[in-house]
Amino acid sequence: MEFMHILLMLTIILAAAKLLSELSERISQPAVLGELLAGLILGDSLLRIVDPHNEILHTLAELGAVLLLFEIGLESDITELFRVGWRSLWVAIIGVVTPAVLGFAVSLLLGLPVMPAIFIGATLTATSVGITARVLKDIGILRWGESQIILGAAVADDVIGLLILAVVSGLVQGESLTVWQVGKVLALALVFLLGALTVGLKASHILLRIAEQMRARAALVTAALVFCFLFAALAQVVGLAPIVGAFSAGLVLARTEHRIRITERASAIADMLVPLFFVVMGAQMNLRAIDITTPAGRSIIGLAALLIVVAIVGKMASGLAVWRSRLRPWLIGVGMVPRGEVGLIFATIGLQQKVFDVTVYTAVLVLVMVTTLITPPWLRTLARRYGARAQHPVPEHA
Amino acid sequence: MEFMHILLMLTIILAAAKLLSELSERISQPAVLGELLAGLILGDSLLRIVDPHNEILHTLAELGAVLLLFEIGLESDITELFRVGWRSLWVAIIGVVTPAVLGFAVSLLLGLPVMPAIFIGATLTATSVGITARVLKDIGILRWGESQIILGAAVADDVIGLLILAVVSGLVQGESLTVWQVGKVLALALVFLLGALTVGLKASHILLRIAEQMRARAALVTAALVFCFLFAALAQVVGLAPIVGAFSAGLVLARTEHRIRITERASAIADMLVPLFFVVMGAQMNLRAIDITTPAGRSIIGLAALLIVVAIVGKMASGLAVWRSRLRPWLIGVGMVPRGEVGLIFATIGLQQKVFDVTVYTAVLVLVMVTTLITPPWLRTLARRYGARAQHPVPEHA
Repeated sequence: MEFMHILLMLTIILAAAKLLSELSERISQPAVLGELLAGLILGDSLLRIVDPHNEILHTLAELGAVLLLFEIGLESDITELFRVGWRSLWVAIIGVVTPAVLGFAVSLLLGLPVMPAIFIGATLTATSVGITARVLKDIGILRWGESQIILGAAVADDVIGLLILAVVSGLVQGESLTVWQVGKVLALALVFLLGALTVGLKASHILLRIAEQMRARAALVTAALVFCFLFAALAQVVGLAPIVGAFSAGLVLARTEHRIRITERASAIADMLVPLFFVVMGAQMNLRAIDITTPAGRSIIGLAALLIVVAIVGKMASGLAVWRSRLRPWLIGVGMVPRGEVGLIFATIGLQQKVFDVTVYTAVLVLVMVTTLITPPWLRTLARRYGARAQHPVPEHA
Repeated sequence: MEFMHILLMLTIILAAAKLLSELSERISQPAVLGELLAGLILGDSLLRIVDPHNEILHTLAELGAVLLLFEIGLESDITELFRVGWRSLWVAIIGVVTPAVLGFAVSLLLGLPVMPAIFIGATLTATSVGITARVLKDIGILRWGESQIILGAAVADDVIGLLILAVVSGLVQGESLTVWQVGKVLALALVFLLGALTVGLKASHILLRIAEQMRARAALVTAALVFCFLFAALAQVVGLAPIVGAFSAGLVLARTEHRIRITERASAIADMLVPLFFVVMGAQMNLRAIDITTPAGRSIIGLAALLIVVAIVGKMASGLAVWRSRLRPWLIGVGMVPRGEVGLIFATIGLQQKVFDVTVYTAVLVLVMVTTLITPPWLRTLARRYGARAQHPVPEHA
């Protein structure tokens, strides 16, 4: 009967996601906000119909994230990404260092021990590129310079996040981490990224040339999917997020002559799976965790409010990297704000490792929720002010 | 690390499926044969790389079957199905009664006890419409009268199979089944089918009209998927196979003006998931179960050989239902032969309920394998002889 349950979940999730993203668009908000709210309604916070911890649902959602970033990669320009590479790196570095330092300092000032303070600092460094990329795509400004900088920064951010995770996990377990170990983590990640963009590009041409000559149905798009899943898996092998691999695969395939056909077919799969990702992300958020009628609940709110300010200010500072250029720092700063599922993962590790008590954990959860939910409308408002018009940049297939 | 494992499995399965279906087509065999063989190579029989019992892989495969039958429904003609309805019913009835009676009799003659003999008879009634429908689709004869009769018979077969399962399960558990209970099972199934094709048709028009007016991306295809998953779930609620629900959903949506757009987008999702279904089906087959160097192994082969003859002759007899019409009985008879996953399910229940010992179970497994693997080439050869030409009836999108 398990399969029936999955079918019903898919029915409910897709229907709710589409209805709420429709409502969201009608009040001039990005579709992804509606999907997150659908998750909030169906998930742990309210109705508890959708269990975001169900393994199958979770896997489908993760596949959705992979396909979203694959699609975004297909619509991005690798030369533009390389051109803005240094700026992206600066955005990522400022966006990691500022919130980490501020978060650590504020936590210490609030009287928290050193270890939770370090972990809060580390959690604040996370960026959820899924949210931002989806908004940029929805409002049709994926090709703007700022968007490409944000995407590049997200990749750099993942590499830096990997290092931070290695260091922090080492600290928690009381190990002394050698420069050699950190260097190995970094080297592996860089080898993957460079390999993906050089060897991968060569390989993609050969793979697609073979697929072209095949008679079997959908050989080309299957080859593209194989490429995407393989890159996502390899990224995970070296410790990076699978979405970074999928994004790289998209970037590489965007350079082939089959970009449009691949994008069109992959987007149909994404149309089904991507809403699952955001609904499950919304369902993971738990408003029940905070009870403002108790003193404990109010102290959570206080801590959360402070952390939210730090989290936003810290990431907004990353916009400074494009100071004195033609680019708009606010757009980049806001784009880096959402913590999304990456923040949730950090918070969960903190709780599991007993670095966070429930108060701190819940405050971090609130921080993740708020930064995730405010970004879509904020980003859209900014983009509108800067002249974004297209609501459906991609041709509406169905 | 579980997600990485799934990504790698998807990579390997899709690559192997496409390569072997390409080889299959090059030697003028249907693509599905290549996918089954890919499963045979990757699964329990040989390499053991793909674990068909992995819950997530299994769910994705089942979703593949749902989408395949949804696609087939979208390409079928409901009025034609109704027109051939009585013929379909006769095909189904003959195709159930003959192999059941023959299987039961042969088992008794071989000295098996009554209960296993009944269960073997029941197992032989199964038809795996997935295999046949896929071949009919691949060789482009889905709209032939014979194909529509087979599809109708498959639906009738599922209803009859439901009754048989109810009766046999009752017998195994020593319960006396009342006519009332059997009647209830039948009534529920019929209510679902009639409801799907009447109320469902009305509901689909309303649903799509709403979706049409939505601004959200992919609203139309999402509505169609919601419809498909809901029908598949409801079918399972009344005890029918989810693929019967998905097929009904496709039939209903085929009557709307959006058929082509829905088919195009749904087929992209099917392109990814359907090969998973057949590879997993192939991976479930276990050639290791038979060791012909031992007497036990040889007696399995003997039993299997007899059962295979009975299974084929029994289903071929169903072609008699179109005797003296312009329709070709052989095509229909062969189309009913494969037992596929339905046969595997019966065999597994038999083993779990301890009705089958390992010898009988393995013989049934061999029977399922052989009937599944011989059907695609056989059906194709027949169709060619009868004038099928189109190899790619559906426009090649990618």
